[in-house]
Order: sequence, then structure tokens, then C-alpha cells
Amino acid sequence: MIFPLLAPERADEFQLRVSKARLAMSDAGVDALLVASTVNIFYLTGGVCRGYVYLPVEGEPLFFVIPPAAPSAPVMRAIRKPEQIPGMLEAEGYTLPERVGLEFDDLLYSDVERLRKVFPASEVRDGSTPLRAARLTKTPLEISMMKTDGMKQCAVYSRIDRCYEEDMTDLEFQIEIERVLRKEGCLGYLRVAGSRMEINMGSVIAGPNADAPSPYDFSMGGAGVDPSLPVGASGTIMKPGMTVMVDMNGGFNGYQTDMTRCWYLGDVPELAVRAHECSRAILRDLESFARPGVEIGEMYRRAVRMAEETGLSAYFMGHGHKAGFIGHGVGIQLNEAPVVMERNKSLLQENMTIALEPKFVIPGTGAVGVENTYVVRPGGLENITAFREQLVQLV
Amino acid sequence: MIFPLLAPERADEFQLRVSKARLAMSDAGVDALLVASTVNIFYLTGGVCRGYVYLPVEGEPLFFVIPPAAPSAPVMRAIRKPEQIPGMLEAEGYTLPERVGLEFDDLLYSDVERLRKVFPASEVRDGSTPLRAARLTKTPLEISMMKTDGMKQCAVYSRIDRCYEEDMTDLEFQIEIERVLRKEGCLGYLRVAGSRMEINMGSVIAGPNADAPSPYDFSMGGAGVDPSLPVGASGTIMKPGMTVMVDMNGGFNGYQTDMTRCWYLGDVPELAVRAHECSRAILRDLESFARPGVEIGEMYRRAVRMAEETGLSAYFMGHGHKAGFIGHGVGIQLNEAPVVMERNKSLLQENMTIALEPKFVIPGTGAVGVENTYVVRPGGLENITAFREQLVQLV
Repeated sequence: MIFPLLAPERADEFQLRVSKARLAMSDAGVDALLVASTVNIFYLTGGVCRGYVYLPVEGEPLFFVIPPAAPSAPVMRAIRKPEQIPGMLEAEGYTLPERVGLEFDDLLYSDVERLRKVFPASEVRDGSTPLRAARLTKTPLEISMMKTDGMKQCAVYSRIDRCYEEDMTDLEFQIEIERVLRKEGCLGYLRVAGSRMEINMGSVIAGPNADAPSPYDFSMGGAGVDPSLPVGASGTIMKPGMTVMVDMNGGFNGYQTDMTRCWYLGDVPELAVRAHECSRAILRDLESFARPGVEIGEMYRRAVRMAEETGLSAYFMGHGHKAGFIGHGVGIQLNEAPVVMERNKSLLQENMTIALEPKFVIPGTGAVGVENTYVVRPGGLENITAFREQLVQLV
Repeated sequence: MIFPLLAPERADEFQLRVSKARLAMSDAGVDALLVASTVNIFYLTGGVCRGYVYLPVEGEPLFFVIPPAAPSAPVMRAIRKPEQIPGMLEAEGYTLPERVGLEFDDLLYSDVERLRKVFPASEVRDGSTPLRAARLTKTPLEISMMKTDGMKQCAVYSRIDRCYEEDMTDLEFQIEIERVLRKEGCLGYLRVAGSRMEINMGSVIAGPNADAPSPYDFSMGGAGVDPSLPVGASGTIMKPGMTVMVDMNGGFNGYQTDMTRCWYLGDVPELAVRAHECSRAILRDLESFARPGVEIGEMYRRAVRMAEETGLSAYFMGHGHKAGFIGHGVGIQLNEAPVVMERNKSLLQENMTIALEPKFVIPGTGAVGVENTYVVRPGGLENITAFREQLVQLV
């Protein structure tokens, strides 16, 4: 197994991430984190294995790995089970933590309870919050990895027109797009935070399916094709008069970009075209308005206001039912902090990476709108999924 | 949203599953379960939504659903948040449970802690164990759904030969198989239990990649193509002298079958052919040996013994490192109980569904072996993935 951040040439990056986590640990009042989730082990080491990163506020972090992983860097130690960790820490001169952080939002209940017993004398506090805080802004390496995702995702989107054949269903269209994605290097697996999302390669939504309610926290739901996975393409045959929204997986390297573009068949009502252009206008507005220090909720309110002023409120972020956000952080997970919603009073920070997706559902026609992934820069938002945004006819 | 088990014509099936869960709840000493995980809500209702099934040992179960889901069956009630549940139960004449079961192995720590506060006067116990026990044996409807999966998976496997082109990588081969699976109706999303598996559409492993260690609990690992997802196809160009093992997603309806077949290129050593035939012989032996009442560990030991007697121990279930099991339950999740491993002293029960996968890794050549999914019947195992098992040459 490979842990790129533990390689000598990545020592600075490892230290940077450790420093960011430590800053947040002090705020959370924990002396050490015992990190066990795949996403946070990947964040701290650049790789995935069964094991635990022990990250004290002071002193060297250690990475305890379980076979088949074996130590391959100075900070790595071999264990068979987590119960060995305290003894090994003490043998190396560490003081066991008074307050240890475990990932309440990233681990199963039974996993946290097992790890709690590993440190019987320690008070257990939430370790997910400081790690989420560390991951809220991205390092230059993370941003460069996400730019790679964006370039590959744009390359795939440039080939979507050619995936279409007449009388296809939305699902058949999606399957051809999946293949192009996979051939470009998409890993085909999206990590999501929490328990309110289940998704594979993304979502293609044609016509009225755009307004079908889904139990998941996606901006546009879709009914899916089976009650066991009620999301996305529904098997709708794509017909003239429909729009088709493509919001497919942009994960190529453990990070991802999130990107939506729309197509249409035959003629669609002027209302759909106007709504699509309003989405683009909202993005243009937010790209220059949003910068470090701006209240995140204000982005949401500006978008809502622009939809209102264009007379499109009834369609904004859904028609029959509405999503309560217009964007979200993205990185290792598809749905990271911050959520761009009305009541988010926190401020944008430089090097946050956020997807903005002001979308509309036009009854009888389908969804329209554009989603891009951005890096928050001092002067505004940098679009890392820059690609043709127009509604394009599928022929 | 659709909840097939709550439809009047499925009332018997719903009652059967409720009865199975109640039997296990008595053993676990809980008066009620509050079920919140996707997998167990799907088990109890046939659909997926944000919501909670309240299942008391006595009295009618209730299904509390959060928008966009809305009540569409007599047992459904609308809520905005779980904190409303106790008041609504009391208003309908229910006594709140003294001991409530929450899914310790299926929910995030923070989700269990939130639900614990919903019943402040109740003792909280593990609710995952009784639900796992209920799901351990399948109902006739579940078995018929899995037979559908098996038929579709076999139909796909019959088209795998045609996915091959000369000089393909394992990953390119896998991508073409994924497309055939998706076109057959595979949902492209596999639910797994616990935190030790991350997988999308399955695994194609060619040549020496069969012995690359993976951190996940798969029988054969594979290095993957990126450190963020170290499993499966590694980008190996498939060459003469290699075997290619295909263990791809069999999920079409919320259930799934698990099935592996092997191919080879050019000439492979007689050792590989012998090991492949040994895998088939082990399956034939277990198909008649295994039946209700047989100790599960004894299946494992018989398989190990047959590999030994054929002089193939060094290659059985891996060469450089070995998996400690030869099979596992399968159903809504890919990795259900029971695990077919040496120390499992529990007994086979009628209508368990298990995947058996006695596999070998031949150094320098690759993996061989067959995996089928079976229903445990009074007279032995019924193979629901019956399809040509021979090593077939890819041309």
C-alpha cells in the first residue's frame, strides 16, 4: 500500500495537514486524535489502509497499521489491533491523552465504542469536527489534484454529445457517459459524508423526472429505476421538448470536482432557456461577489434574489419540492462543508473549494442550470470546471 | 417514493419480516427497535427514505417518514424530525419502551447519540444484532429476488468473452463488463456492511495483481490504480500466461448475487488448471455436504483439507497473504452473516443465502477459482448462479 504524504518528498505537505488539524484540535479541546475513518486517514497519509493515525497536539504523529499494510515510513508502526496502541505509545514516551478525539460523524457507533475502551482513562470528545475544520480549506497540493479532476471531467463532458443516440433512455445515455468517464480514469466510487447520500457514478435526469422527489440530499432528485435506490435516471425515453441534466462523477484521484451541464431535445420553452441563462447569470454574479470574508448565507440570498427578479422563483432549486441550498464544499467527499444555504452565517475563506449549482425545474420540460466547482481566491472564485455552459441540442 | 412491502398485496411478507425481527428482539432483550439505517428500512419496507421504523415487540409497527416522503400506507406517519416520535407514539396509546434497540453496527456514532436522546427514559441496547439475525435467513420473496439477480448476472457473464480485445488492460476489460452489467439493469451501487469495504462495480484481477494486498475484506485484493482506492484492477495489460478473475456486481433490485468466473490468455501452467478444478471440486463437495444443521466452520475446514490433499495449500485463498474465509452471507449487503471461516461454530440454517468462493493464487499466473451464490436447502445447496465454470480462453 502506498501513502504518498509519508514519502520524504511530501514531508512539508504532511506537516501542513497535521498543523491544520492541530489548530482545530486546540479549539475542540482535545489533546490527541485517534483517526480511523478511511476519508481522514486518506487526508492525513494520502493512502487508505486498515489502521489508525494517532495525532497528538504535541509530539510526532504515529500511524498504526494493521496487516496486510506494513510500516514503510518512519512514522508507521505495525499492530494487530487498536488495543495495542496505548502500550506502544507509552513505550515510546508518549503521555496518554486526557481528552481524546474520536470521529463521531465518520465512524459507526460500534467502532467508536470499541476505540473508547482503548483509552479507558481518557475523556472522549468528538474528533470529526476538528478534522472537518482542517479539511475546510484546501492546501495547494489538494487544489492541484482537484484541478486535475476538473480538467478530466471537462474532457469527458466534451464527449457527452457523442454518447447520445435517438430514442435512448436517460439511463442508457448515462451508461455511455459512465463508460467515457471510466476510460478517462474516473475511479467510479464517490465518498460521501453522513448517511443521506447513496450514489455511484452520478445522475442524468431527463424531462419530468427532474421533479421526482428523492430521499437523498441531492439538489435535483430523480426517481431512479428501483425502489432500493430512488435517485437519478428513471428509464425515461428522452424526447423532443425535454431538457437533460448531466451531473456525473468527477473523481479521479481521491478528490473530485462537481459539475453539471444541460442539453435539450427538439424545442424547449423559452422559459427553460431563460432559467438556464439565469443560472449562468447567478454564477457570474457569485464568481465576483464571493471572496474571503463574505457571509456564506449571503451567497444563497443573492441567488434567490436574482431568481426572484427574473420571475423564476417558482422553479428555483426545484418546483414540486425544493432543495434548501445552492452549493456545498467538495473535496475528498462530495458533500463537504460549507453548505451554501440561507442560515449559514460563517464566512468564506481563501482556498475553500465549493460547488455552486443554481438550478431550476421547469414543469413538463425538465431541469436546467449549470454547476461549477470553484476555489475561493482573494479576488473572487476561480472556476476549475470551466467549460461551455450553454444549453446544447442533442442530435 | 415506493415502499412495496407496505402495499396491501405484500402484507404477508411485511408481517413475516416483522415476526422474524421480533423473535430476535426477544433474544436481545429489547421492547422496541427504532430502525434508521437505509439497509434495514429497505428490509422492513421494500423502499428507501429518510425516516424511522418503530417496531415494538407488541403492537403495530409504525413508519415515521420525513419529507419529501409522505404517508402512503396505513402504518406511515409524517414527521419533520425524530424528536417528535415519542409524543406521537404516546398519542396513539403506545407505551414507550423500557429498552430500545438502536443500530450500533449500521449507524454513525452521532446518529445513535441523537436517537438515544429521543428516548431519554429508555435503556439503549444494540438493535443491529436482532435485525442481522432476522436477515440471516431469507424469505421466499427475498430468495426469488436473488434468483432474478442470479439469472441476470449469468446473462451478463455469458457476454464477457465478447468484452475482450487484444492488449486490453484489466481495467479496460472491466469497464466493458461494467457497461454490459449496467445495460442488463445492474444498479451500479453495492451496499456493504461495516467500514472495511469500498467498492463500486466489482473487481477484475489479471496476472500477478491477484496477490497484491488490499486493505479491504475481499477474498482477492488487487492493488487498484490509485492510492485512494487500493483494490481491484491495476491497469495490468492482459498477456498470454495470465489468468483473469472476474468478480463483478450482481445487484439489480436491492438484493444481489456474488459470482466469480475465470478466463486465461495463451497457455497457463497446469498448476493453475489443477487449482481451478480443485475450486470446482470443493464447491461440488460443499453443495452436497452443506445443509441445515452443519457447522459453518466445518465447511471451511473441508475446503482447506481438499486444497491440502491436492497439494495446493500454498496457493489457497492467496499466496503472499491469505484471506481467512471461503465464503459469506449475501443479500441486501454484499457481506452479510454468516462468514464461512474456521472459527464459526454456528450452524447452517435453511434459507440462508451464502456465496462460496474457494480461490487460489498461482504466483506469476494469477487467480483461479469459482464463486457461486447458494440457497441453503434441506437437501444441500441450491446454486442460483449456475453457469459454465470452466477456465475459458480469451481470444
